[in-house]
Amino acid sequence: MSGKALPPGSTIGILGGGQLGRMLALAAAPLGLKCHIYAPEADSPAFQVSANYTVADYLDEQALAGFAAKVDVVTYEFENVPARTVEILEARVAVRPGSKALAVAQDRIKEKTLARELGAMTADFAAVNSLDDLREAVQRVGAPGILKTTRLGYDGKGQAKVNGAADCEAAWKAIKGEPAIYERFVHFDREVSVIIARDLAGKVAAFDVTENVHRNHILYTSTVPARVAPEVASEAVFVAQRMVEALDYVGVMGVEFFVGADVLYVNEIAPRVHNSGHWTMDGCLVSQFEQHIRAVAGWPLGATARHANVVMTNLLGDEAGVWPGIAMEPEAVLHLYGKAEARPGRKMGHVNRVQPLRQ
Amino acid sequence: MSGKALPPGSTIGILGGGQLGRMLALAAAPLGLKCHIYAPEADSPAFQVSANYTVADYLDEQALAGFAAKVDVVTYEFENVPARTVEILEARVAVRPGSKALAVAQDRIKEKTLARELGAMTADFAAVNSLDDLREAVQRVGAPGILKTTRLGYDGKGQAKVNGAADCEAAWKAIKGEPAIYERFVHFDREVSVIIARDLAGKVAAFDVTENVHRNHILYTSTVPARVAPEVASEAVFVAQRMVEALDYVGVMGVEFFVGADVLYVNEIAPRVHNSGHWTMDGCLVSQFEQHIRAVAGWPLGATARHANVVMTNLLGDEAGVWPGIAMEPEAVLHLYGKAEARPGRKMGHVNRVQPLRQ
Repeated sequence: MSGKALPPGSTIGILGGGQLGRMLALAAAPLGLKCHIYAPEADSPAFQVSANYTVADYLDEQALAGFAAKVDVVTYEFENVPARTVEILEARVAVRPGSKALAVAQDRIKEKTLARELGAMTADFAAVNSLDDLREAVQRVGAPGILKTTRLGYDGKGQAKVNGAADCEAAWKAIKGEPAIYERFVHFDREVSVIIARDLAGKVAAFDVTENVHRNHILYTSTVPARVAPEVASEAVFVAQRMVEALDYVGVMGVEFFVGADVLYVNEIAPRVHNSGHWTMDGCLVSQFEQHIRAVAGWPLGATARHANVVMTNLLGDEAGVWPGIAMEPEAVLHLYGKAEARPGRKMGHVNRVQPLRQ
Repeated sequence: MSGKALPPGSTIGILGGGQLGRMLALAAAPLGLKCHIYAPEADSPAFQVSANYTVADYLDEQALAGFAAKVDVVTYEFENVPARTVEILEARVAVRPGSKALAVAQDRIKEKTLARELGAMTADFAAVNSLDDLREAVQRVGAPGILKTTRLGYDGKGQAKVNGAADCEAAWKAIKGEPAIYERFVHFDREVSVIIARDLAGKVAAFDVTENVHRNHILYTSTVPARVAPEVASEAVFVAQRMVEALDYVGVMGVEFFVGADVLYVNEIAPRVHNSGHWTMDGCLVSQFEQHIRAVAGWPLGATARHANVVMTNLLGDEAGVWPGIAMEPEAVLHLYGKAEARPGRKMGHVNRVQPLRQ
């Protein structure tokens, strides 16, 4: 073990108080590590499971300085942490993953460019900063495709479909003229993801490749094992490994792929624990959340062996109301996020349906 | 499901802020249930994982009333909750398990008398309220044996060995003249325990019988499966079931047995989650902690099926310093309790070593 490991009793600072921050805090506790959550919303779900938290804006320099003084390392649950926030914190305390990974993950063009530089496939794409750019991109790259803001989009927000030249004006308007990327659709059979971790010493470990189904642009189910050929799964892990190494990454990263005719296309990376890794909570001894905490605390990575087949299903909005039924299913494990208001499409929880492996 | 189930968003009040309260709170979170911990010690480990807690004496009526007003049900992590505390709380909010179970578990004579009434074996015993009582008991029941205070003993505290009449005076002095029970030693090959749960509707579920090894009167390891004949295991579960039914019990209870020549002797009951059930955290989909929260919240019990063989080892005092090694073991899951000071013999954490079952 590296001498840089934070011993039990140390405090992990977490930016973001949603379900990912909450599950990170729950995973830190059994390692004897305390958490301090930092989030602007007073009713953040992660606050419920941590005695220490700060309610403040991400650009509140005084609050950030106070937070930095109380923690031994900082991590985050979401990729849209303002660069200025990280700058303020990095001057005082280690931030993991670092600003390099964040800069790439916050910009779809940088993300896809890196993937290509590392020899991975992506959809054909072009940068779009004007309506003329978009028209030219559609002509050059081909249609149909999708226009996405380069920054701050998630769960289908900040996106517009482009079937051909005639859609350009509406699409450009829909994304409100933000700097954007135009991507040609790729034909794919399925979506898969790799949840990979890299520790401070540079060791890498990936969980088994997961197959994902989206519904209305929001993840609906993640299933292990994924229905892909072993060599496709290996290639996906290898691409993810090249990425964490290129970014000198520390922590857990999610890499989403499209798979078409056994060809892998990198879709996007998430510099954090990822919804498609929630199955690890009940399918592995060490979950993606514990894995991330281990990495950012300078601990060695845990084993990623899987002892069960798992189907993870998100509970969105009112769907969380099915908890009484789930509580009676013998092979289901319920994970609710402590959110008071079940807005449509809001991630309220998930359920893992678990079948122990026959060895 | 019973209509009495507390929905997600409800608050479980927990008396006691040690590792059991902490692990109960960590298990309540994924069910969407909040916790409010009540303990007299300002540095209680459970406070670290709960935004809501009260630091106050167990007999502080005002603090108890305030606590009762903020929670939807009360449970506890230790059996020595003062009767007066429960009385104050029960006037305001449901307390589970109830005062009946607590009264029996707090008194070794009531405990063994109940076991006998239910047709179970125990060591031969006699009540001891004076040195003369003790002398008579040793003569009548036989020696060697052990003198224990009827109340408030745990981990070998409040006990004295009696090899014969000559030891009576010293033993009586050692337990400081408290009301006591004298028990003749039984010959046993091993110690086992049953972790059983009963829900509000009266349904009962037990985890697999666990084999326990003590060291210096403190639990050292718990292993599943236990090395006992199937019919002995069944009988142990059946005894535990009769007990929770007789006590109209709601929650998880631990029942410890001695096993000698395939005969079971009830040693003691714990009206709470139990150290010998910590293996369930990594050997079952639903741990004893979630099971207890489910029961006291009026939810149905979870499945108790075991998907792995597990050896749980307590980390006492300085032993917790081995965490760097445990963190590198691929089949080990570490559970530290967030205690700052590693006093000799203090339970600092445990490790579960897990072998998935071949089915």
